[in-house]
Amino acid sequence: MRTTQHDIDSADNLERRNRGLEVLREIDGEAGSKVIDSLADLSPALGHHVAAFAFGDIYSRPGLDARSRQLVTIGVLTALGGCEPQLKVHVGACLNVGLTPDEIIEAMLHAAVYAGFPRALNATFAAKEVFDSRGISGS
Amino acid sequence: MRTTQHDIDSADNLERRNRGLEVLREIDGEAGSKVIDSLADLSPALGHHVAAFAFGDIYSRPGLDARSRQLVTIGVLTALGGCEPQLKVHVGACLNVGLTPDEIIEAMLHAAVYAGFPRALNATFAAKEVFDSRGISGS
Amino acid sequence: MRTTQHDIDSADNLERRNRGLEVLREIDGEAGSKVIDSLADLSPALGHHVAAFAFGDIYSRPGLDARSRQLVTIGVLTALGGCEPQLKVHVGACLNVGLTPDEIIEAMLHAAVYAGFPRALNATFAAKEVFDSRGISGS
Amino acid sequence: MRTTQHDIDSADNLERRNRGLEVLREIDGEAGSKVIDSLADLSPALGHHVAAFAFGDIYSRPGLDARSRQLVTIGVLTALGGCEPQLKVHVGACLNVGLTPDEIIEAMLHAAVYAGFPRALNATFAAKEVFDSRGISGS
Amino acid sequence: MRTTQHDIDSADNLERRNRGLEVLREIDGEAGSKVIDSLADLSPALGHHVAAFAFGDIYSRPGLDARSRQLVTIGVLTALGGCEPQLKVHVGACLNVGLTPDEIIEAMLHAAVYAGFPRALNATFAAKEVFDSRGISGS
Amino acid sequence: MRTTQHDIDSADNLERRNRGLEVLREIDGEAGSKVIDSLADLSPALGHHVAAFAFGDIYSRPGLDARSRQLVTIGVLTALGGCEPQLKVHVGACLNVGLTPDEIIEAMLHAAVYAGFPRALNATFAAKEVFDSRGISGS
Repeated sequence: MRTTQHDIDSADNLERRNRGLEVLREIDGEAGSKVIDSLADLSPALGHHVAAFAFGDIYSRPGLDARSRQLVTIGVLTALGGCEPQLKVHVGACLNVGLTPDEIIEAMLHAAVYAGFPRALNATFAAKEVFDSRGISGS
Repeated sequence: MRTTQHDIDSADNLERRNRGLEVLREIDGEAGSKVIDSLADLSPALGHHVAAFAFGDIYSRPGLDARSRQLVTIGVLTALGGCEPQLKVHVGACLNVGLTPDEIIEAMLHAAVYAGFPRALNATFAAKEVFDSRGISGS
Repeated sequence: MRTTQHDIDSADNLERRNRGLEVLREIDGEAGSKVIDSLADLSPALGHHVAAFAFGDIYSRPGLDARSRQLVTIGVLTALGGCEPQLKVHVGACLNVGLTPDEIIEAMLHAAVYAGFPRALNATFAAKEVFDSRGISGS
Repeated sequence: MRTTQHDIDSADNLERRNRGLEVLREIDGEAGSKVIDSLADLSPALGHHVAAFAFGDIYSRPGLDARSRQLVTIGVLTALGGCEPQLKVHVGACLNVGLTPDEIIEAMLHAAVYAGFPRALNATFAAKEVFDSRGISGS
Repeated sequence: MRTTQHDIDSADNLERRNRGLEVLREIDGEAGSKVIDSLADLSPALGHHVAAFAFGDIYSRPGLDARSRQLVTIGVLTALGGCEPQLKVHVGACLNVGLTPDEIIEAMLHAAVYAGFPRALNATFAAKEVFDSRGISGS
Repeated sequence: MRTTQHDIDSADNLERRNRGLEVLREIDGEAGSKVIDSLADLSPALGHHVAAFAFGDIYSRPGLDARSRQLVTIGVLTALGGCEPQLKVHVGACLNVGLTPDEIIEAMLHAAVYAGFPRALNATFAAKEVFDSRGISGS
């Protein structure tokens, strides 16, 4: 086994991470970068894998456009519950890839059918915080 | 309060249910109708509300196209876990509204980032059963 | 399809919503109305369906009394986790329909067997906030 | 520390377990005893604590009647998902403590509002299996 | 049935609770005791069973060492989500039984594979609060 | 961006996958390889990432020994519910890395405190299937 495999600062891993960080910055903007930065001292490997794996390996795969990926993500995060911080980052990402506030709000109403009203309500109020911080309204 | 409100066979409720059943048949095809039929003696009110509310009131709202709604639904059902029967109905619905097998499989890979690999694996194997029953392959 | 189906302010939908709002005010009191009000600009359709569907169509069905419905609701919300805002509204509703603080607390202890102690602890502390705000103690 | 504390066959623990088994047999009937029996070789301590703690210490507490406890339990198990075996035992217990099939079905419809339709559907079909095995219908 | 069974201050129950409280104090330290204390007026029976059952009956069983139990607990609490208060108590407990901050952080990264990145991120930030309050850093 | 990044059969990705497959075979044995094989036509990218990311990048990191990782995994999978297929693979992995049947069963009893008895029961019965298939008993 290559001894550098788990060295997140090896040339290979650095390249993978940097590719992921580019995607993350493009999609999530400042909010995503802040999450990675906040992990720098605490769990640099978690930050590496969020960037290198989640964004570099998965998010930027060609099989599904960014708008579709965000719709899946909103569905998953609404259903899981307790993921309001991640939901806010991804509501921002939704706006960045062209979903309108009304479409985001509609996706959360749709999720109520399958995940119940409390999850949909919590997601909707998390979206409101993002809309408010960007000076836009949901409807 | 109108005494007919909770009579699921009142004129109003019948009209709402029939509108929903039309949407359900269009989207889910036979698989959806079978679920409603199987509830006829067991819990007719649950069958009514799946048709009238889930499909009539929510699914057919104009704010989001059917493809987008299915992506949210796949995200929610993959994340919830233990919803393989519903996932199979909705994988069929995904195909009916124009998502390709590869896009469905990609959406489930995407969900792995947020809901973990076990949920994504179970969803992918549920999709396989639908693909197999329709004589198509996932990749 | 009737063009008014998804117009939440059509005569039919307004009537359904108003019937639901009556139930909601009776059961949840001010806390429930506040949730609907807070959705007015953000997601009026979500507010409509909470009132018209959750309270009008389901909650007020004759098949189960309000006390029994609240016991089921406390069970669901304790188990889901991350639904503290909804749990607080429903702890208030429990008191409104005649459950005693001790019965609510006992229901949450009972839920610990099936959903684990952390969920029961979080629910119990959410109940405490409601009890405190009403000037009553839990035991 | 008493050396017998974790000996599930100490006099104290045997007494606690037997009290719980009595409650379990009264409430769950044969279905509950079968679960405990199936743990005898596999995880006797788990069987002991289901009987001694879940049924002896909690279920039989005086603060809430058996009907109310079953309603909470149905809510929790419907919401958790993936607990169909336990749900079936408790649907049987519901019938044993006097809930009617229609009330059980109604409780699961009620749970759909908070936990989503897929969880309610799975619970309802689990209930059907119990009703069928007892030769009764749900509506 | 002994009339004292559900009297949490009977001699038997007091002895069980005190044995549990000893374990709790040894493992969780002050953070655990505070949780029990906060339940004294609100739900003394819940406090009793956390001490007597969770810590006395289960935690101190000889079949698994404290380090192993904490690893399982971190896995469960990370996966459940919405259990940040309990996670913080148990991150403290992890440190008390000899897990290093790096091992705790690594366990949460490991959990990301199975429970998804959002749950792992929330757990990691909860751990950070405990590390900060003890003046230690995670990596 | 390198055009080969998402080509799972590029030299880099093949190397990462092969390193992961080695770990997977060592830990999970035949059961793990079967899962990857079953994904070959269905979702080769999911199979790649389970091997390359889950086993290559995360599982084999030096920060936590295999026994500890399995304890975390058992905790997560027990808590999630509905992951019986993955739980069985990992119960086998537990045995492969030196956990005894009694320790696995004890870990699941421990999880009952935090995730509730139904999850612990389902996990324990999944473990039984693995023990039976290997001709060993749980206690």
